[in-house]
Amino acid sequence: MPLFIAAIVLALSAIPCCLSIWPIPRSLDSGNQILKLSGLFDISINFTNPPQDLLDAVTRTKYSIQTDQLERLIVGRGLSDSTAFGSAKTLRTLMLALEQSASTAQPIATEAIVALDARDEGYSLSVPLDGSAGVVSANTTLGLLRGLSTFEQLWYTYDGTIYTNYAPLTIVNDSPAYAYRGFMLDTARNFFSVSDVKRTLDAMYLVKKDLLSLSGSPIRLSQINTFHWHITDSQSWPIQVVQFPELAQAGAYSTNQSYTPGDIQDVVTYAGERGIDVLVEIDTPGHTAIIGASHPEYVACYLSDWITFASEPPAGQLRLADASVTNFTAAVLAAVAETLPSTMFSTGGDELDTACYAADGPTQMMLNESGRTLFEALDIFTSATHGALHALGKTAVVWEEMVLEYNTTTLRNDTIVMVWISSDDAAAVVQRGYRIVHAPSNYFYLDCGAGDPIGNDPTGNSWCDPFKTWQESYTFNPLANISSAQVSLVLGGEQLLWTEQSGPENLDSIVWPRAASSAEVFWTGDTLPDGFDRVGNISEALPRLHDVRYRMVQRGIKAIRLQPEWCALRPQVCDG
Amino acid sequence: MPLFIAAIVLALSAIPCCLSIWPIPRSLDSGNQILKLSGLFDISINFTNPPQDLLDAVTRTKYSIQTDQLERLIVGRGLSDSTAFGSAKTLRTLMLALEQSASTAQPIATEAIVALDARDEGYSLSVPLDGSAGVVSANTTLGLLRGLSTFEQLWYTYDGTIYTNYAPLTIVNDSPAYAYRGFMLDTARNFFSVSDVKRTLDAMYLVKKDLLSLSGSPIRLSQINTFHWHITDSQSWPIQVVQFPELAQAGAYSTNQSYTPGDIQDVVTYAGERGIDVLVEIDTPGHTAIIGASHPEYVACYLSDWITFASEPPAGQLRLADASVTNFTAAVLAAVAETLPSTMFSTGGDELDTACYAADGPTQMMLNESGRTLFEALDIFTSATHGALHALGKTAVVWEEMVLEYNTTTLRNDTIVMVWISSDDAAAVVQRGYRIVHAPSNYFYLDCGAGDPIGNDPTGNSWCDPFKTWQESYTFNPLANISSAQVSLVLGGEQLLWTEQSGPENLDSIVWPRAASSAEVFWTGDTLPDGFDRVGNISEALPRLHDVRYRMVQRGIKAIRLQPEWCALRPQVCDG
Repeated sequence: MPLFIAAIVLALSAIPCCLSIWPIPRSLDSGNQILKLSGLFDISINFTNPPQDLLDAVTRTKYSIQTDQLERLIVGRGLSDSTAFGSAKTLRTLMLALEQSASTAQPIATEAIVALDARDEGYSLSVPLDGSAGVVSANTTLGLLRGLSTFEQLWYTYDGTIYTNYAPLTIVNDSPAYAYRGFMLDTARNFFSVSDVKRTLDAMYLVKKDLLSLSGSPIRLSQINTFHWHITDSQSWPIQVVQFPELAQAGAYSTNQSYTPGDIQDVVTYAGERGIDVLVEIDTPGHTAIIGASHPEYVACYLSDWITFASEPPAGQLRLADASVTNFTAAVLAAVAETLPSTMFSTGGDELDTACYAADGPTQMMLNESGRTLFEALDIFTSATHGALHALGKTAVVWEEMVLEYNTTTLRNDTIVMVWISSDDAAAVVQRGYRIVHAPSNYFYLDCGAGDPIGNDPTGNSWCDPFKTWQESYTFNPLANISSAQVSLVLGGEQLLWTEQSGPENLDSIVWPRAASSAEVFWTGDTLPDGFDRVGNISEALPRLHDVRYRMVQRGIKAIRLQPEWCALRPQVCDG
Repeated sequence: MPLFIAAIVLALSAIPCCLSIWPIPRSLDSGNQILKLSGLFDISINFTNPPQDLLDAVTRTKYSIQTDQLERLIVGRGLSDSTAFGSAKTLRTLMLALEQSASTAQPIATEAIVALDARDEGYSLSVPLDGSAGVVSANTTLGLLRGLSTFEQLWYTYDGTIYTNYAPLTIVNDSPAYAYRGFMLDTARNFFSVSDVKRTLDAMYLVKKDLLSLSGSPIRLSQINTFHWHITDSQSWPIQVVQFPELAQAGAYSTNQSYTPGDIQDVVTYAGERGIDVLVEIDTPGHTAIIGASHPEYVACYLSDWITFASEPPAGQLRLADASVTNFTAAVLAAVAETLPSTMFSTGGDELDTACYAADGPTQMMLNESGRTLFEALDIFTSATHGALHALGKTAVVWEEMVLEYNTTTLRNDTIVMVWISSDDAAAVVQRGYRIVHAPSNYFYLDCGAGDPIGNDPTGNSWCDPFKTWQESYTFNPLANISSAQVSLVLGGEQLLWTEQSGPENLDSIVWPRAASSAEVFWTGDTLPDGFDRVGNISEALPRLHDVRYRMVQRGIKAIRLQPEWCALRPQVCDG
């Protein structure tokens, strides 16, 4: 029968069927024999003075392996493996080793926010078949963390026995193809609590409160290393800024729906310990209507007809030609940025509505007085606001229009540009010499295809239909139309959740496991360890994505199903 | 500004802005003054020997009103209402009255399963402004329940005061436009626990276990009266049938992922007490591959190449030309149906794969021996299986192909036909004289637009893209191309969740509040109480749908957002 022939052909791939690691390491040599985990299993560290967050990561890893209780996704769920349990060896120790080139071990949180071009996430991992100690080695504690995340995905449980069926396993010098592998969450259209954010970084449901810090991370599981926090927008201003308390007082949906400075630090610390850099975005000068709730004099078209003056309600954007607005904006950005450890900060810059500025009397008056065009004024605004960030040692991040539509001339060369309108725009930005992060709506927008938030739309289809499936994002090519000389300008990419129609209720299910698909695009790159192209690899990837999805559910993340369980238990049998 | 002009025009509608009732009653006269709920509020019953499930419904209603703690969806969330609290009257009593024509009060669960043409859900409701007793009156306890569901939606909380701002309110003889208003859940592609099912009928999260029976119901809130339980399919057989234990033993995903007879009764009882009829479907003769796990001799094309022999994996369907298979099927259906109180039972009948039967040696041999065509054999199979149901007093329900594709000649005239392939097919079924339930994929399939479960589909778009928005289903016309003489054949409709890519994790969010949209289509009908057409009513409907959605969330149902909260608080301001 054609079905079984297809399955046999696929089984010849060098990646063992259903290997559970996501993203797949760039180098991999694994067997298919059983190795059990000792009841006395422990993780040792071969160097002195390990940082506390590495010790915590070790504790979390041991906890996850002990409690995942994930049965293999095959018919019988591990029954067939259990016949080998009697003769299998037992792993007692995993050793964490810093390479000799490493200097004094830094906290993971420190290594996680090193500038992208200097960040070191590489690691090697060996898990021998004979029961002798496994080893994770790396130059950095961040690399050790990546190795731990890989290691913890190897383990299944059947009838009380914790085991892997991929022994012996050797990974040599696995490191990400791209330095930036992100996930963006918009907390302004609808509010998400700190615990929602932390659950996204980590698992919080179902585990007892005192075990929260021990639980597993969907972001960490998939080696995503950047949380892009689109924290404000025209609808609400949830971040409390100490120097500008009026912004959240007037602009948050409620006091309960705002982030205190302590909340922000809590998220940043929590993320850093898990190897995740937090890139905060205060979108300016557009997407700022809510600033009008406390500073109406700073906002053009405030609450005017949105159909004429904005891409979505409510209308309103900063009067960028006004020097006092520029100073205010620079001060707000600096006030937020100075509290954050990341080297990156985003000033946004998307979807400026020129019709609004054309109709705004104060803006036109100021442009006439100065003799500047709107975009010349934007140049000055950008220079000032980015200058405030540069003074704090930050690298500015902007959306693509700043380069492609507004022809901003004052962007510093090291500015990072996010390409969102279309993947086709990436090449043009690179040609201008800027570094890019791929965030294209046609591949990576998790909100697409779930409706239209405009109240009286009779069909209600989303502007970026259809739904972006995991397959769509998995087959993305980061280097399309990029010349080999420009490859180094491609920093990576991210999947994004804009929240017009999302909230805490569907956060897990609309994000996971889909947002893990790009993690493999940007960690593993174009070529799989077996030499095959990633883009043609959906059929092999799906069982591994099932595996990470079922593991997330075991950790309390409400990730959606990708197939009927009948198919999840029968790799490749539900291929077409 | 055009925005405010639009808002004023809309405010002239006779339905007060943001009236919280969903579905809107067919007759309605409401004011806009404040009436508070007394701290001593109680619900009294004016007749003797009320059934226990009505007493329980009273307890639940009081509990919901006291605990919803829903603030109004306006800027300030009720602050502007609170200025009137001092002078407002207080409601102390709601009286439940059976009309004099009513005989001895029956349990709600009994009234809820009366045959559709005799079911009486009508009620009247008055809530005076002066604080004198409110009254719900009806001919049946089921009607009283519908009145209670309407009443409990009137109440908001602000700063500890429970109040309505729609007093005085009078509803006279509200009753549904259509008798069948359903929701279908497929528990075979992926499994849902009894608590998932009950949560769909009712709210279970966040309330203490001992309050489970007190909590509110999303189905009841939206006056949906039928739970269509698509309980088996080719992927799994989760229902334990006492006389045929092998079916679930071999066909359930696991013992934990199956329904005991007690589980089924638990759901049926739970639903009946909440005014919900349970229509169970055992889909035959197609969609039955899993029967091959215990009876391979009964199943054609069992696990053969699904691309050739089935609409989705796995392939396999009952050998309908085999008399022993026919007898077996009739016995299984009867064994399940005899345990259920509903007058309806569905035998399915969709997506027969004729290529499978053409390639199946045993089927071809039996057809040749009998000299019958496949569809002649299907006629005999249907006559026997439906005969078994008729013997139990059940009305058979089938999918549309039984009439439109297979030209089945043995269907009894009272068979109910579900139209799913396209809304365009409804008229043809009605023209054959059958009663229909609208379940069209192009309006009511909740799974559409969320991907394709086929493992190696490189884009992964769903066959029925795009996503069916609430607006799409809300604007459905049940009488399109139906002549006035045939209107009585239109029983109603339902929204459906097929679960190839859904599970407990996203059940709430993919279903609610979208599945409430058709409830208004089939309760309220084509004309709103203000005389306007429903189809053009999206802008007025949205704030009410927000209201029921936010109320669901207060009750622990993880219903999705339909707009940014900024828009939800500003009715019509985010219209286009």
